[in-house]
Amino acid sequence: MFEASELGHEIDKEQYDREVPELRAKLLEAQYALKENGSFPVIVLISGVDGAGKGETVNVLNEWMDPRHIHTVAFSAPTVEETARPRMWRYWQALPPRGTIGILFGSWYTDPVVDRTYGRIKRAELDAAVVEIRRFEEMLADEGALILKFWFHLSKKDQEKRLHEIDGDKKRTWRVTKADWAQFERYDDFYATSEHVVRLTSTGAAPWLVVEGKDRRYRELTTGRTLLDALQRRLDGDRGPRIPQPRRQAQIVHSIDRRDVITEIDLSVTMDEKEYDDELEKWQGRLNRLVRDRRFPKIGVVVGFEGMDAAGKGGAIRRVTRALDARQYRVIPIAAPTDEERRQPYLWRFWRHLPKKGCLAVYDRTWYGRVLVERVEGYCAEGDWMRAYEEINDFEEQLVESGIVVIKFWMQISQEEQLRRFQERESTRFKQFKITEEDWRNRTKWGDYQSAAADMVERTSTEIAPWTLVAANDKRHARIKVLKTIAKQIERALDALPKKP
Amino acid sequence: MFEASELGHEIDKEQYDREVPELRAKLLEAQYALKENGSFPVIVLISGVDGAGKGETVNVLNEWMDPRHIHTVAFSAPTVEETARPRMWRYWQALPPRGTIGILFGSWYTDPVVDRTYGRIKRAELDAAVVEIRRFEEMLADEGALILKFWFHLSKKDQEKRLHEIDGDKKRTWRVTKADWAQFERYDDFYATSEHVVRLTSTGAAPWLVVEGKDRRYRELTTGRTLLDALQRRLDGDRGPRIPQPRRQAQIVHSIDRRDVITEIDLSVTMDEKEYDDELEKWQGRLNRLVRDRRFPKIGVVVGFEGMDAAGKGGAIRRVTRALDARQYRVIPIAAPTDEERRQPYLWRFWRHLPKKGCLAVYDRTWYGRVLVERVEGYCAEGDWMRAYEEINDFEEQLVESGIVVIKFWMQISQEEQLRRFQERESTRFKQFKITEEDWRNRTKWGDYQSAAADMVERTSTEIAPWTLVAANDKRHARIKVLKTIAKQIERALDALPKKP
Repeated sequence: MFEASELGHEIDKEQYDREVPELRAKLLEAQYALKENGSFPVIVLISGVDGAGKGETVNVLNEWMDPRHIHTVAFSAPTVEETARPRMWRYWQALPPRGTIGILFGSWYTDPVVDRTYGRIKRAELDAAVVEIRRFEEMLADEGALILKFWFHLSKKDQEKRLHEIDGDKKRTWRVTKADWAQFERYDDFYATSEHVVRLTSTGAAPWLVVEGKDRRYRELTTGRTLLDALQRRLDGDRGPRIPQPRRQAQIVHSIDRRDVITEIDLSVTMDEKEYDDELEKWQGRLNRLVRDRRFPKIGVVVGFEGMDAAGKGGAIRRVTRALDARQYRVIPIAAPTDEERRQPYLWRFWRHLPKKGCLAVYDRTWYGRVLVERVEGYCAEGDWMRAYEEINDFEEQLVESGIVVIKFWMQISQEEQLRRFQERESTRFKQFKITEEDWRNRTKWGDYQSAAADMVERTSTEIAPWTLVAANDKRHARIKVLKTIAKQIERALDALPKKP
Repeated sequence: MFEASELGHEIDKEQYDREVPELRAKLLEAQYALKENGSFPVIVLISGVDGAGKGETVNVLNEWMDPRHIHTVAFSAPTVEETARPRMWRYWQALPPRGTIGILFGSWYTDPVVDRTYGRIKRAELDAAVVEIRRFEEMLADEGALILKFWFHLSKKDQEKRLHEIDGDKKRTWRVTKADWAQFERYDDFYATSEHVVRLTSTGAAPWLVVEGKDRRYRELTTGRTLLDALQRRLDGDRGPRIPQPRRQAQIVHSIDRRDVITEIDLSVTMDEKEYDDELEKWQGRLNRLVRDRRFPKIGVVVGFEGMDAAGKGGAIRRVTRALDARQYRVIPIAAPTDEERRQPYLWRFWRHLPKKGCLAVYDRTWYGRVLVERVEGYCAEGDWMRAYEEINDFEEQLVESGIVVIKFWMQISQEEQLRRFQERESTRFKQFKITEEDWRNRTKWGDYQSAAADMVERTSTEIAPWTLVAANDKRHARIKVLKTIAKQIERALDALPKKP
């Protein structure tokens, strides 16, 4: 993989000086065409061996193009805010909006490669990280991103020479730290690990471009030309070298008797007022004790509510939040995306609100919008909502792995009950805001929404993040079920924590 | 101030039940009218005595209105991210967008009042905080915000009774902590401090509404009605009870000989290449050593660049960032605001990018846009840019007080030099992106921009955040001046830090 980048590639000054002005002009043109086009972001990863010119390349790209439309982000050790959230959170925050170029100096590759080099993680863990990364980059590509991953390489001999050279130069010696020399001692391990990772993650949609880092002119021209070429091809309408692949997602098949997980919900269950009052007190109290448990700061909680209009999401949410301290939770109502959100991948607007450890986030409607309303109303292409099932499962898996409890409710009511509630809303003045033309329109598509919900539950009810189907014709029953489920799932998560060290 | 709220106000159940449905309906109507209108945010502060029903009021407001358009934020002890930034940063992050209601549970009042109650700050410090808060709220009001500050009061006897009552109820006893009892011991100090603060900060634009908290129904109806009334009046076009006041800002007076700080800049200074190379190396090295100084994590740095088009801001910025580690700085190019930014006060988009301690933020164009381009091009009303001078000074003062070094450059070139550079840009292919129709248009208003710059420097060059005027006809001279100024100002800030404890 890296052998071709130990050949001592060089470009002489004359050629460099001849080519650069033309290259810069064209890069700028392409950058402006990208801005004009606005439909996709460009994600450039800068990785590789220390001393191979990564920082210099970041600088030269910012110099050659208009830095006002480049988002350069360099990652160092994660901050407290970052470590309190899933590993990928900080990379999501750093994604460039459509129409711009993001240069990421250090990336989601850094930790797995370095951790494996130093033996801090096992080979199997490295490979799990690789799988996760592949799926993440696939999602980015599916969302339209043009991804270019540069790996700057130096042979062992060249790296040693380079480190000595910089270390011996009194103006630059600060750039070489003890850690760099310690890293150099691990050159062979680093080489083996990174070659393995680069090989497994060089895909059509997100290729690695290995560049020999020894000669500055060679390195810069190669990087610039590669970027230009990819940008131009993409702007010309070529979606890149992605091999047409068989449909990735399993097709949706409906049972011929029209029975599914949604139709099977028993909506006849009820609860009388007396029982409700007792249970409400009991479970709100339990929930309250749980979030004040000394172990609670070790976990985070994400609760998502979906359901037909008027199924009682708001009322259920209020019964939950009443048991909580306002400083511990946020309710996140999901409405139309803002323009900053529209310029990012679909899941971005859910990532941005993820709770820290010790906190709860309650989403009133969720990331499932894509496979519910967007699917039914045709707001996105079939390919987009089909791939969403997998992306959502990956998303929730990442949450769970970072210690977040994911609790999802589908609130189900009958068509008759919905009609009754709509009419009640229309006739009660302070409930009128809850009912709009759109609700009536959605109601005409009842069957489509129901079967979309059934598909959703089937494809995304996982062991780690199961759906709880709530019979909601009876509000009292529904609210207690919600409260009880949340309390029990948090309790289980706390009990599953490793005992005090 | 609080006496009228110790009278034992009560509302009976019958009246409450009669009034609430109507009130809810009207609150919802007003809330939707606000959303439709979209031109201003509503900021509701919930403060007061513990046990006076603050949390319950937050809940009831969320229940009476549509919680999807309410941003409820409860503040607890600041996070690490928050303490690494100016005190007001987290409140800026919590401001509701125009068209929505923000309910802030705890606010910018909490720390000063509590700190003073416990004797952690002096009376003079409290009063300084009061002045700062008044100016902040004035800015919010000038930006259009409707501000309602509720203070829930209980007499000493009533608070004691309430605490005992809750503490004795096994379901709610967790709500009363040792800290609450400790706080109660300080009732008299708290009373005195908060009355003082409430009195000094109850302004026409941001009035305090003191509500007796003893009776739930009284408290809820009073709060709801007050909010409704204010909202309705504002929606009907009444900007509220602000007394027409004499022009707050001093008028702009131009010297009759047309000489000002800008015309006086000596543009003839130059630097030869040899000297430039030596100086560049010297000051980049110096800057680099400074940001790696062990004391550097104690300060933050904000560098802002303004100047006529083609004055060399980008080139100067690159000479600075070359000396830095990419993980320590961000360059923030200021372009047209996004829609999220447009729904917030003008300074919001600068606050959001403020650097943490130990980091630098370089703004390529700045918050001075309001008194430069927006003033000259008429993008905002005269009142808006006139008040901006003060608001900007307040903003920078807050940065400096939090330990941020504020460094501001005005890059000045002559009209002839600008023409030369424009022409060079047009004829050099990779520089063409730097020159647009707009640049030529702006050029025709040269005189207006120059005098706006002079007014700006005069009104905002403060001792704590002075402008550095850079003669930029000679790029080498300008770049060294910028580098040297930054290095020296950082050095001075580090030397001014208290010696190791």
